[in-house]
Amino acid sequence: MRIITIVGAGLMGSSIGFPARENGHEVRLVGTPLDREIIEHAKKTGEHLTLQRRLPDGYKYYQFEQMGEALSGADLLVSGVSSFGVDWFEHEVLSVIPESLPVLCVTKGLQDTEDGALIPYPYLYKQHLKGRKLNINAVGGPCTSYELADHDPTEVCFCGEDMQTLRAMKEMFECPYYHISLSTDIAGVECAVAIKNGYALAVSLAVGLSEKRDGKLHYNSQAALFGQSVREMRRLIALCGGHDDNIIYAAGDLYVTIFGGRSRKIGALLGRGVDFDKAMEELHGLTLESVVIATRTANAVKKLIAKGAASANDFPLLLHIDALINDGAKVNIPWAAFETEFTT
Amino acid sequence: MRIITIVGAGLMGSSIGFPARENGHEVRLVGTPLDREIIEHAKKTGEHLTLQRRLPDGYKYYQFEQMGEALSGADLLVSGVSSFGVDWFEHEVLSVIPESLPVLCVTKGLQDTEDGALIPYPYLYKQHLKGRKLNINAVGGPCTSYELADHDPTEVCFCGEDMQTLRAMKEMFECPYYHISLSTDIAGVECAVAIKNGYALAVSLAVGLSEKRDGKLHYNSQAALFGQSVREMRRLIALCGGHDDNIIYAAGDLYVTIFGGRSRKIGALLGRGVDFDKAMEELHGLTLESVVIATRTANAVKKLIAKGAASANDFPLLLHIDALINDGAKVNIPWAAFETEFTT
Repeated sequence: MRIITIVGAGLMGSSIGFPARENGHEVRLVGTPLDREIIEHAKKTGEHLTLQRRLPDGYKYYQFEQMGEALSGADLLVSGVSSFGVDWFEHEVLSVIPESLPVLCVTKGLQDTEDGALIPYPYLYKQHLKGRKLNINAVGGPCTSYELADHDPTEVCFCGEDMQTLRAMKEMFECPYYHISLSTDIAGVECAVAIKNGYALAVSLAVGLSEKRDGKLHYNSQAALFGQSVREMRRLIALCGGHDDNIIYAAGDLYVTIFGGRSRKIGALLGRGVDFDKAMEELHGLTLESVVIATRTANAVKKLIAKGAASANDFPLLLHIDALINDGAKVNIPWAAFETEFTT
Repeated sequence: MRIITIVGAGLMGSSIGFPARENGHEVRLVGTPLDREIIEHAKKTGEHLTLQRRLPDGYKYYQFEQMGEALSGADLLVSGVSSFGVDWFEHEVLSVIPESLPVLCVTKGLQDTEDGALIPYPYLYKQHLKGRKLNINAVGGPCTSYELADHDPTEVCFCGEDMQTLRAMKEMFECPYYHISLSTDIAGVECAVAIKNGYALAVSLAVGLSEKRDGKLHYNSQAALFGQSVREMRRLIALCGGHDDNIIYAAGDLYVTIFGGRSRKIGALLGRGVDFDKAMEELHGLTLESVVIATRTANAVKKLIAKGAASANDFPLLLHIDALINDGAKVNIPWAAFETEFTT
């Protein structure tokens, strides 16, 4: 039996403990200061407030003040925070844990830099905490929290620098509904599964466009935008220095995200011709990871274009999404820009 | 104005004339002997019996006996037959047309050979009609007939040996809802869009599995199988000698096919644990392209494996589909076989 401490009791943080707990490990779920109610409610009822699922028997619950206790004897720390919690996690958690404790992050995202690079969180953490020798790993691949909690089988990828650590983590989590590939290509896996958030919004434009046109749900446009997304995502993975095979995580994760929730909602609203600001109002100002990641990715690409290291022709869909979000543009899928002539 | 003669008045044959007709060209729709009623009905009502859509004003209708008349002065012949009509098309149409008449085939499919190769129809036609110098092109990409008729925008790829012919065809069909890339990589495009039929069945297994488990539609498994499909399809495109970039047509076409109809139905039935023979009974013995293409592709791969030119580890999903269809196996997704360890 291993002890797995999860910090961040949101949807994915709370769900990823399911396979570990069902494998017989001790799972300790620690709420951030934002999760106070979730932890209180789970302690009392065994249910998760926002996931709206029963959590596994034997889960142990801690408020953030009890993190020290929750980390005592832990074999693995899981970061369950979203991309909006990474600074908090870095300062409040990563800077105080022992260096010997491996970390597995569920957070998907990238940070763009001044010179147009896109840096995944495991690298960012390492840059910021230079003095510390942390063993930071991450999860990518198609897996939404609700469906993980519902035991819908899937296959994800754990990535990190050390294959031995990855194998040890795999042993804790692998089960009949949670299958795990391993990769030391952190840049490739993390880029793949971050950028799909922006493209999920892009594919969802077709949902809104077809609803507006004739009130029906059509799939040709979604599929063509999916194909174009695969094309652009491969280019982005290459720009991030990742191996091309990671496109399978990007494509799978894009697929599940399109049917996921908020990225689809904002995309469909924009597709119907609603202005970005109004669309965000309709979503009650929820800060969306798809919006953040599309903006950051586009910022990086625009910097690379400005210095001649990338071509605008290679990212027409991403740049259109960026224009919708950040320049007040109206939806107008740049179909002609997707067309190619290929000669063998 | 150009004259475009379509032979085969099924769903796609009848739909692909929409953009051409709306661009002002003359479109002549010729029924095969199986399409007699469709042509009769369309002549009388202007509507298509099985597509259940109004056909464009100005479409001209011909029974097969009138093909000569329909071909008179034609600038392009479109083959609208399904993969079950290719032999008929070869003998009854391709062997009698003038060599100067370019041909565009909507038929998606591959034929496996004794030595484990997979040959797309344009090449097969050329092999079989060696004495004739035909200019045979094909359409690939995400485009279902219903949605084309409904003007849901998409992007497809016309492939053929001669870029000038491809550009001329593009001029006839390109319109605001039908965008066209061009490629001389016939093997790559045709392999990509044929094999997706087998993988659409594969992804749909997850639909049946989740419906059986808790009566709900889940997406994690579909997405993971989508990712694995992308992985295996890239390998198949490479085996067919196609360029890797064609994965975008395979992925887009796979996406639209999953939401399409029969491939999803048979996959979902198999996923629920129904035997293949019973599943086919439920579908009233419809001969399914997904079943044919999965079988042929698996046959080719098995021959390559037998002679050491491919590895079973590279195609676990395809081989499982083949076992379901042809060996009476029960559904049991080989998740562990999808897992990889990748070291940079």
